[in-house]
Amino acid sequence: MSLLEQNTFICPVELALKAIAGKWKPAILWELASGAKRFNELQGAMPGISHKVLNQQLTQLQRDGMVMHHGAELELHAGYALTPLGETLRPSLDALAQWGKLHGER
Amino acid sequence: MSLLEQNTFICPVELALKAIAGKWKPAILWELASGAKRFNELQGAMPGISHKVLNQQLTQLQRDGMVMHHGAELELHAGYALTPLGETLRPSLDALAQWGKLHGER
Repeated sequence: MSLLEQNTFICPVELALKAIAGKWKPAILWELASGAKRFNELQGAMPGISHKVLNQQLTQLQRDGMVMHHGAELELHAGYALTPLGETLRPSLDALAQWGKLHGER
Repeated sequence: MSLLEQNTFICPVELALKAIAGKWKPAILWELASGAKRFNELQGAMPGISHKVLNQQLTQLQRDGMVMHHGAELELHAGYALTPLGETLRPSLDALAQWGKLHGER
């Protein structure tokens, strides 16, 4: 059932926020927007996130089609990257990051 | 205490999302991004929102400095509009809306 049928009123901004909102999703997407990262690189970039929670979030983002895992776990370059769909979030992530840097400290 | 002090890790995207996330805030900001609106115009544009909730959200957005009320209540053109700070959200709102229209129906 599409988001539109699930809810009485959805504005397009709200639809997009459903894809990126959440405690850690924005930070994970923002980290991957600067390039593919291994699990421990992601965990190191986000103090406070546990191994379990990062794993859950990455699994959810893969299910949403936003993130892909590439390479076998022990391979040097194994890691996570944005999918083509995840890449379509870049304009939103960039605009939000720009706003956050300028005004976020209010 | 600034957002940075309140939390261990904040990425700029997350900071911006704190300003616009919420059940009705995105829809209200999105409606006002297309121009000033009276209370009943806003309520009419968002089926499912009660008078009380809309009033609370508008009060919160005014407190956040994103929205301003202009004109005495009964005046013809009394209504709500984005403040200059609220206007700075426009690039984010536009990018999110664009994404929502293209991909939101997944």
